[in-house]
Amino acid sequence: MTPPRLEIGAAEYAERRAQLARTLQDHEIDVMAVFGPTRVAYLTGFFFSATERPIALLLGSGGDVCMFLPEIEVGHFAMQCPDLPSPVTYPEYPGGGSGVHPVRQLGAHLRRQFPRAGRVAADHDGYENRWGYRGPTLSDVLDAPVAVRLELIDDLRAVKSPAEIALIREACRWGDRAHRLMQDSIRVGSNELMVSHEASLSATREMLAALGESYVPKAREGLPANTMFITGANTAYPHGLHRNTGVRAGDVLVTGAYGTVGGYESELERTMHVGEPTAEFVSYFEAMVAAQDVALQAIRPGRTCASVEAEVRGFIRDELGLDHLVRHHTGHAFGLEGHEHPFIDLDDPTPIREGMIFSAEPGLYVPGLAGFRHSDTVVVTAHGAERLSLYPRDLASLVI
Amino acid sequence: MTPPRLEIGAAEYAERRAQLARTLQDHEIDVMAVFGPTRVAYLTGFFFSATERPIALLLGSGGDVCMFLPEIEVGHFAMQCPDLPSPVTYPEYPGGGSGVHPVRQLGAHLRRQFPRAGRVAADHDGYENRWGYRGPTLSDVLDAPVAVRLELIDDLRAVKSPAEIALIREACRWGDRAHRLMQDSIRVGSNELMVSHEASLSATREMLAALGESYVPKAREGLPANTMFITGANTAYPHGLHRNTGVRAGDVLVTGAYGTVGGYESELERTMHVGEPTAEFVSYFEAMVAAQDVALQAIRPGRTCASVEAEVRGFIRDELGLDHLVRHHTGHAFGLEGHEHPFIDLDDPTPIREGMIFSAEPGLYVPGLAGFRHSDTVVVTAHGAERLSLYPRDLASLVI
Repeated sequence: MTPPRLEIGAAEYAERRAQLARTLQDHEIDVMAVFGPTRVAYLTGFFFSATERPIALLLGSGGDVCMFLPEIEVGHFAMQCPDLPSPVTYPEYPGGGSGVHPVRQLGAHLRRQFPRAGRVAADHDGYENRWGYRGPTLSDVLDAPVAVRLELIDDLRAVKSPAEIALIREACRWGDRAHRLMQDSIRVGSNELMVSHEASLSATREMLAALGESYVPKAREGLPANTMFITGANTAYPHGLHRNTGVRAGDVLVTGAYGTVGGYESELERTMHVGEPTAEFVSYFEAMVAAQDVALQAIRPGRTCASVEAEVRGFIRDELGLDHLVRHHTGHAFGLEGHEHPFIDLDDPTPIREGMIFSAEPGLYVPGLAGFRHSDTVVVTAHGAERLSLYPRDLASLVI
Repeated sequence: MTPPRLEIGAAEYAERRAQLARTLQDHEIDVMAVFGPTRVAYLTGFFFSATERPIALLLGSGGDVCMFLPEIEVGHFAMQCPDLPSPVTYPEYPGGGSGVHPVRQLGAHLRRQFPRAGRVAADHDGYENRWGYRGPTLSDVLDAPVAVRLELIDDLRAVKSPAEIALIREACRWGDRAHRLMQDSIRVGSNELMVSHEASLSATREMLAALGESYVPKAREGLPANTMFITGANTAYPHGLHRNTGVRAGDVLVTGAYGTVGGYESELERTMHVGEPTAEFVSYFEAMVAAQDVALQAIRPGRTCASVEAEVRGFIRDELGLDHLVRHHTGHAFGLEGHEHPFIDLDDPTPIREGMIFSAEPGLYVPGLAGFRHSDTVVVTAHGAERLSLYPRDLASLVI
């Protein structure tokens, strides 16, 4: 018996398009052009390497679908989306001898397929400036206004289906495993890049062996189980870069381990210590874990993102007295992308709903010393939040 | 003695900004907002992980510079760009409690720092829709037109300096080495992902050992020597995805190996065969190599991209009779990004100039059989093109 493929099925993609079409009707939009590669994948299951060659999905409020592609992607599209109509194609960017810019060809096709379309929306007014791409806006080529309404798609993406949550749960399993392999192999003198990539490779090997044919690659690059870490004072920068030197005794490590299954990602980050930690380290570490506890308790349906953030920040300010060490908000949604809307931020009033996926990662950054941040993947359930990344959070488990 | 750091120096970044400021004067633009992460890195040396948090560089035609950053990136920026003025910051996206969207804060700052600015340009009208980002356009927040003129920067980027060419030459060296390690380890039964990542890791280990402290990481993720390959009928799609099965006897492989040094990439791709190739394979392989020879000879100063493409396509059509197997143009510029403007395409009239870097990669795609494509990195010299990737191109060297 073939095990079930770990990916979203054609019926769910069709339901997403139907839901968007209903949303377009509600907003009296006749047709929407979707340029964002992740949004195209979300609505069709067509995963591709985004380049300077424009790709767009046209969706009419009546449910009509048209994929607009360069010739180079035709076979690839047919293989991934056998149930969708044949695409409309152009030879090549910037023209491939056609003498007409691809987005002008798209505009002409839109007018042909949707001749009575009055109100046109898009997630971006034309193709994004990816790599060496240059081109006109869609409103230019249509000589008509185009309403930029990316939230009509991204708000749908924010609430995950049971199938999406299952993929993220599986991704978390492999993120946890990759982190374990990485932690077990870090030694004094280890090179950051080497150790983390070796662990990624070992975890990927286990993952592909365990999942077999049920694992369906959705990306051209990168490993489906992936780890990284940064060390020392670099950790005091939340987005610090690698240091090309070895791990030292007394170093603080801030790690990350991410699984990807069916195109969906997980998130797991830990603060670790090489050797016996100082009292100063312990005190900041415990403070950070306490703040994360507040976040994990606070995330639940019926609250807003802003109110969760206010509670976490209130705790850090009033109970810990460490508000001056905060450099970023508590978390973000994610799924097909590493960060997605909404954000657990004082200025994000989005109501939290069952099925949303968030990172919970309040961080404290002590200049000259280190950064302190755990991040976990949580899914919002009917009554609260369930942690899907199950890696230990306590200090004893995180000392090397 | 410390070896020279393999990166662009502060003086060259300053000269790039001066050159752009002169260009702004020529176009009667008073200030330009730069949102594209690669363009910001090109103009400042500030390399960062682009997220939903807007980052922008403001450059006045008089040479005034201002970096606009989220708090989270301040330390990171100071470390990489000690010679630039202190940045203007905002707390967090979408607001972090400020109650004001970051791009509105940017607009207000632009009006303060450049109170007499009449004509404003940008590479994109507001921050790009990266991850979960949403926000107003720059023209909205300024309540004034913003001219989108990304070509003012990207045309400068197209002609590489001696320092940039030296970095790309070094990157090619490691791309070649990584490809050698990959080729030597591919066996019947090898898993695509495993073998290529193991080779990437081995090549990276050699590279870091050889370059030592002169190697300066510019990215948070990925390896600086990186390989991949796809197999079998998947190769008939130019951007085919991985297959989670082993290499088989008789498989065609299309490979890629890329070095990254100082933020600059190289490109090397080869068509290979597992076991004795068939006569059909040999015939398409030799045709592809002949087409690449035409491209390598045709690229030189004084011609246009379109005329090079016309010559290659003429050869494929008239001499080979295989025009129907072409799925993409002959090549693209690159450097800080994998593809950059201009493109060797029938619709790209850009004149070829000394110092430009191109891939030369005419491909033939035979449905059901395989794809045939070599890609090499070439630099345009005074009299022609020099190949910087030196991996063998002949069939005997590419049979496993």
